[in-house]
Amino acid sequence: MGSVAAEKTVKGWAAHDASGVLSPYTYQLRETGPEDVLIRVLYCGICHTDIHQTKNHLGMSNYPMVPGHEVVGEVVEIGPSVSKHRVGDKVGVGIIVGCCRSCSPCKANIEQYCNKRIWTYNDVYTDGQPTQGGFASHMIVDQKFVVKIPEGMAPEQAAPLLCAGVTVYSPLAHFGLKEPGLRGGVLGLGGVGHMGVKIAKAMGHHVTVISSSGKKKAEAMDHLGADSYLISSNESDMSTAVDSLDYIIDTIPAHHALEPYLPLLKVNGKLILMGVINQPLQFLTPMVMLGRKTITGTFIGSMDETQEMLEFCAEKGLTSTIEIVKMDYVNEAIERLERNDVRYRFVVDVAASNL
Amino acid sequence: MGSVAAEKTVKGWAAHDASGVLSPYTYQLRETGPEDVLIRVLYCGICHTDIHQTKNHLGMSNYPMVPGHEVVGEVVEIGPSVSKHRVGDKVGVGIIVGCCRSCSPCKANIEQYCNKRIWTYNDVYTDGQPTQGGFASHMIVDQKFVVKIPEGMAPEQAAPLLCAGVTVYSPLAHFGLKEPGLRGGVLGLGGVGHMGVKIAKAMGHHVTVISSSGKKKAEAMDHLGADSYLISSNESDMSTAVDSLDYIIDTIPAHHALEPYLPLLKVNGKLILMGVINQPLQFLTPMVMLGRKTITGTFIGSMDETQEMLEFCAEKGLTSTIEIVKMDYVNEAIERLERNDVRYRFVVDVAASNL
Repeated sequence: MGSVAAEKTVKGWAAHDASGVLSPYTYQLRETGPEDVLIRVLYCGICHTDIHQTKNHLGMSNYPMVPGHEVVGEVVEIGPSVSKHRVGDKVGVGIIVGCCRSCSPCKANIEQYCNKRIWTYNDVYTDGQPTQGGFASHMIVDQKFVVKIPEGMAPEQAAPLLCAGVTVYSPLAHFGLKEPGLRGGVLGLGGVGHMGVKIAKAMGHHVTVISSSGKKKAEAMDHLGADSYLISSNESDMSTAVDSLDYIIDTIPAHHALEPYLPLLKVNGKLILMGVINQPLQFLTPMVMLGRKTITGTFIGSMDETQEMLEFCAEKGLTSTIEIVKMDYVNEAIERLERNDVRYRFVVDVAASNL
Repeated sequence: MGSVAAEKTVKGWAAHDASGVLSPYTYQLRETGPEDVLIRVLYCGICHTDIHQTKNHLGMSNYPMVPGHEVVGEVVEIGPSVSKHRVGDKVGVGIIVGCCRSCSPCKANIEQYCNKRIWTYNDVYTDGQPTQGGFASHMIVDQKFVVKIPEGMAPEQAAPLLCAGVTVYSPLAHFGLKEPGLRGGVLGLGGVGHMGVKIAKAMGHHVTVISSSGKKKAEAMDHLGADSYLISSNESDMSTAVDSLDYIIDTIPAHHALEPYLPLLKVNGKLILMGVINQPLQFLTPMVMLGRKTITGTFIGSMDETQEMLEFCAEKGLTSTIEIVKMDYVNEAIERLERNDVRYRFVVDVAASNL
């Protein structure tokens, strides 16, 4: 492991331009501040957002950029004011590493909605230096943005929970949709959608996967444990399902019609959007008014919710479905993720990789 | 008043075709059933919905049709099982007079969302006869759908509360937006919008009226007591108002963009749609996700909420702003309402009219 001082010079894999191709990159971490935790990275998941960032799809990318925001590691050093974590702890880091701490969302501990939140990478930290993510040997993160991986949870399993997991857990918790017996729908069966099925099932819900084709039926029912599978082009089945769901988690990341799905909701039902879509979605007002339905969306989750979600998953024995790869495979993994050729999340075994 | 038996033959004013012109019409009411209340109508408000119905804008009108669903009257007879009301009580009837009583919304006492609700007029009652509304000397209504006008509230004042009033009260109550100190916006200043300002002010909210022009500023601030007035085309004022509102009551009854208004909402803010609009409205998912905002809509309110709202208004001394007319003016009043030439609601003094 070497000395702590030597560890401040770290090796990661960075994108150097909008090609998004990752290659080795050496850089310096800041000194461990009073509230900071130095983490040796063990595993890091690959999320669609990483592709948008490394390939500059949003036009806001700065290079070199070390992506990765589903980070699991081990604490190797703590600052003098750190009380939450100890050396040797298994910990996780998600999509943000800073916030203003004084705005109304920060005061309400929903720092994911702070307008001054600092992204885990492709952002500028309070010291003026660029933030760099989890595809690297080490990270330094303020203790507030570090969660504890519960005893007994495999660290590679925890990685996708830190983004995809909390992304679906947060709205269910916030909107009072955690109690058993509810009926939920999941639209789209990618990294977030598969986690939606698993978390909703673990909450004791009756879960219907809604898809444009029958292709994923066996996967949804047999592997993920969904209770029902609805093909949106089957008018008769869709009509039978009217007024049957308490909520729909809509993970479709592209433009789509909402009209087929709103009628599936019961009175007071909630359509929860998870996909950042830059083309407007449409709805008819009577479809929400005549049933007091809600169209909403949430964005990851708070640090408190992340910790709560990890403990929930540990308690329920919930696991994510992952394919573990080494760092020298990361570019191929990204290509496969782009064509949805993964079941359901790539996790890079960073500690076992030659960086 | 004559005998009760004679009162079952009633005179009302009905539309006879899609011209929507009302003229005298004599018809029979059913016998007073065990749960029924016979009401001598005192006042009845004129709502936009009456125009849509009498002129067959929705293609579902049956004639002759006696409109009117903001009805205030006096109980003149009750059935043997009626426990809620007594002869002589001042009572109100709103937009529905029946429901299935067995579905999930009915069991939750939100019968306005029952799929088998029976409209106050232009519908068919359980006895197979057409329902007829409040522009008539009398109505017979099941006690469940009759509310008590609180002591001290002028009956003509109560009329618009039974539809416009509960329409804005219900979402504020349901979505936890009743507590004082909240900041609300009201879009559109018609019958529902003006009531929105008054009810929100009575709840102790800071109320901003949002309008496309400055024309209604003095009216909103001086007469209705709004705290602030925002012109949606003023980019600088709109930008200052970003992130400032807990909710917006959107009463615009025609197609409009939502993009200018969603940013005005705080985190967890709610856009509550009140207008039945048959052209789709649009929104961008990041606008709701990055702030956990809600787009929703509600439909009138339950009988329980209607009673609660009347008591709230009586307690707060809240009055509606009305223009009282006689029945022989009703067609002119409808024409004026169609061109928004009313401040803010016409109420027909039915008891003082020559029917």
